[in-house]
Amino acid sequence: MLVSQSVLRNFTKNIFLAMGCSIEHATLAADVLLQADLRGIDSHGVARLVGYVRLWESKRINANPNITIVHETPTTATVDGDAGLGLVVAPFAMRLAIQKAEQYGSGWVSVRNSNHFGIAGYHSLLAVEKDMIGFAMTNASPLVAPTYSNERLLGTNPMCYAFPAGKYPPVVVDMATSAAANGKLEIAQRAGKPVPEGWIQDAEGNYTTDPHALKSGGSLLPLGGDKEHGSHKGFGLSATVDILSAVLSGANYGPWVPPFVAFLQPPADPVGLGIGHFVGAMRVDGFRPIDEFKAHLDNWISRFKSAQTVDPDQKVIIPGEPELEAEADRKVNGIPLVDAVVEDLNGLAEKFGIAPLAP
Amino acid sequence: MLVSQSVLRNFTKNIFLAMGCSIEHATLAADVLLQADLRGIDSHGVARLVGYVRLWESKRINANPNITIVHETPTTATVDGDAGLGLVVAPFAMRLAIQKAEQYGSGWVSVRNSNHFGIAGYHSLLAVEKDMIGFAMTNASPLVAPTYSNERLLGTNPMCYAFPAGKYPPVVVDMATSAAANGKLEIAQRAGKPVPEGWIQDAEGNYTTDPHALKSGGSLLPLGGDKEHGSHKGFGLSATVDILSAVLSGANYGPWVPPFVAFLQPPADPVGLGIGHFVGAMRVDGFRPIDEFKAHLDNWISRFKSAQTVDPDQKVIIPGEPELEAEADRKVNGIPLVDAVVEDLNGLAEKFGIAPLAP
Repeated sequence: MLVSQSVLRNFTKNIFLAMGCSIEHATLAADVLLQADLRGIDSHGVARLVGYVRLWESKRINANPNITIVHETPTTATVDGDAGLGLVVAPFAMRLAIQKAEQYGSGWVSVRNSNHFGIAGYHSLLAVEKDMIGFAMTNASPLVAPTYSNERLLGTNPMCYAFPAGKYPPVVVDMATSAAANGKLEIAQRAGKPVPEGWIQDAEGNYTTDPHALKSGGSLLPLGGDKEHGSHKGFGLSATVDILSAVLSGANYGPWVPPFVAFLQPPADPVGLGIGHFVGAMRVDGFRPIDEFKAHLDNWISRFKSAQTVDPDQKVIIPGEPELEAEADRKVNGIPLVDAVVEDLNGLAEKFGIAPLAP
Repeated sequence: MLVSQSVLRNFTKNIFLAMGCSIEHATLAADVLLQADLRGIDSHGVARLVGYVRLWESKRINANPNITIVHETPTTATVDGDAGLGLVVAPFAMRLAIQKAEQYGSGWVSVRNSNHFGIAGYHSLLAVEKDMIGFAMTNASPLVAPTYSNERLLGTNPMCYAFPAGKYPPVVVDMATSAAANGKLEIAQRAGKPVPEGWIQDAEGNYTTDPHALKSGGSLLPLGGDKEHGSHKGFGLSATVDILSAVLSGANYGPWVPPFVAFLQPPADPVGLGIGHFVGAMRVDGFRPIDEFKAHLDNWISRFKSAQTVDPDQKVIIPGEPELEAEADRKVNGIPLVDAVVEDLNGLAEKFGIAPLAP
């Protein structure tokens, strides 16, 4: 089904309102999810809505959080999300980072007691709108084994860096630190297709191309796949995300991160509160006049876009470009939803007594 | 040859003094190189000394730089290295970042007009000594092709994150953003051995296992190797390093970065000054009391060290551990130098009229 973004946005907002979110939080949370759907990152958009509702039903998401700053200096802070939606807690943290950057040049906020924050790019781009460089990362439910291990100890722990350009759109590096994000695995599962070697291993630690291997004790592999191809680097990046997001804020880390799914209980021996994020903003003009920076970043983009390629029909892709192409298309033509997602959403509509989705 | 660190340190300092460096700069530059040799990162230690001397001879390294702050806010700054050794320019920048962090919680410095800065870990660890989190990255001579391209447009552009622990040594993630660093290629070249698929491609963009392929127009591949295994992520990380280090500071970026070797001329149409670095420091206690952080990081390390492994004899390696093991060994047993390096070093000794290296 193709649904216009305004219809889907309104529907999503109504679900959050029905959960008891304030109008401000419901609008913001819907905006974060819709940006994922618009940008083509379907695994992080409204497809997750039913997951948020289930966590709220099992009292693991607080629809009316009292988000507080528990510690701060002029340019750093720790925020407690009061078990709220990461979709509203992370923008709170990023606005705080931006305020600090406006005054002192940079601002950095580590967040505890939060939940899944949607796409990292949304939060980083809040800084880019202010001519700042945006950083956003989060830890997540453990699915990834460190190099040499077959134990799931880390999430897909994404990191995102976003930079404002001039005539070109922003450069947005937004990536899971695993070889493949879980969303890609789900696509292969639905399609009944094998995945490439180097994405996952089975319970014994052998490479497998079975996209269902996670269900039988397998694990995702860090970016790099194996040691010879640099998986210790993917592990190191994932560790960095975990430490900045959770060891620094007082959230749960490693295997203690609570699972995103309501049917799995969080570990009985938590080492912190909820999941953790880390966001930051730096004023570009804290280093160099913004126009000079943008002119040089445009030159950088232009040089890479015109790079010689192995296949002349396949150009080099600037980080963030595919998402912008999806957005341009979907704003006009609507957002495609697979049947299973439409079914989930209309199940929610029925639960809350609101009108179902129509194309 | 095995050389004690004190002998090698003194020898190295004397070479820098002979180039005309001040005693302070010569001592510091020797310390940065020796830390690489002690920590087992042989490609970034005294093996590079002859390269620095050649660049100085061709007037591309200034032995007496007037390092200046050209722009700043309370927590950000741009430093001009005056074409000095990166080995002294980067510690200047990191000390500035640390000062800012002491006052405001965090400090971030982008550097232009510099040269090769040795190992990133050295600079990050300066922050760790002050109970801060240290960040260091640098761009470098173009050897890496972005995803889909067979043109060398990026350096191996390392990024480093370092965190102070309690009873354990610091966690130090220090990694090239390419699948393999150039140093690993050099080892295979010397040994006459093939390299794994996924490290390099030939001039036409085909995977090759020939470690000499760079000499015939080949290029290194970004971390991930190919698109299917996430090379767009390695490219994105490398782009992040390039933008923060050079587009932000006013250094050269992408294919304009001057080559480290004196026999290759820098591009005739520079887009900035020298090469660029980016360093930062954040006070841990800007987020959370330092003792709490260290206790939880110890718990993190301890959990990952005891992770179940595929091969029970192969434990999970905490980032930074192999370097510490090398350091413990080499401090006692001396630093092993291959014949070619001893020859290079004694060639320098002869050139400058100082005593040659003896075991």
